[in-house]
Amino acid sequence: MNALGKLLLLELKDCNKEVLNDLDFLKRALLMAATESGATVLGESFHQFEPQGVSGVVVIAESHLFIHTWPEYGYAAADIFTCGNSVHPEKAAEILIEKLGPDSHSIIEVPRGIMDTQMGGLE
Amino acid sequence: MNALGKLLLLELKDCNKEVLNDLDFLKRALLMAATESGATVLGESFHQFEPQGVSGVVVIAESHLFIHTWPEYGYAAADIFTCGNSVHPEKAAEILIEKLGPDSHSIIEVPRGIMDTQMGGLE
Repeated sequence: MNALGKLLLLELKDCNKEVLNDLDFLKRALLMAATESGATVLGESFHQFEPQGVSGVVVIAESHLFIHTWPEYGYAAADIFTCGNSVHPEKAAEILIEKLGPDSHSIIEVPRGIMDTQMGGLE
Repeated sequence: MNALGKLLLLELKDCNKEVLNDLDFLKRALLMAATESGATVLGESFHQFEPQGVSGVVVIAESHLFIHTWPEYGYAAADIFTCGNSVHPEKAAEILIEKLGPDSHSIIEVPRGIMDTQMGGLE
């Protein structure tokens, strides 16, 4: 399949609730997931919500990683969007799952930019 | 369905190629999509790539909007992630489609954080 990008949607359930409200921990986890998967980090932005919850993005040269947490439900949604062949989003997913320790999780893979013609993206 | 969030994945094909490489235009379009849909903007980050392409995020209190463009293919991927009932992601999608003017587009809706128990998210 000729796709310009790949999006992994992680559903992380029954995580450690304290971790889900720890902005610094989540920032370190997302940055580690980005660098360990081979991505080039361009910037990041994290926000702590009251009474609880964190949203954070790491912008990478190859697209982005995002996390939104709901500590009250033990739930986090993480999106890993990559393009090109130099980044391994599955590695980033593996790291986030290990760091957040959900009792159950699922990963949906969505190819993005499926082109009819030959091009230089993922194949 | 009890879901904490809603993710709209926009595939925008055969857009105006000049628009897809215009960071300022795309930033204005994403910010307009955020505010017109009822979201509270917390921050934004946009990057121009060489020789072409733009990545941009608008972080909102209700999650995020993201765009990645490939002017060489006339293609843009846009993600609109919202939670709560005060934001209308479909309105944001409508604005982005209008601004980028793709000849063809598709929207995939992915519910996020489907909970077994009753809670205060989208229903």
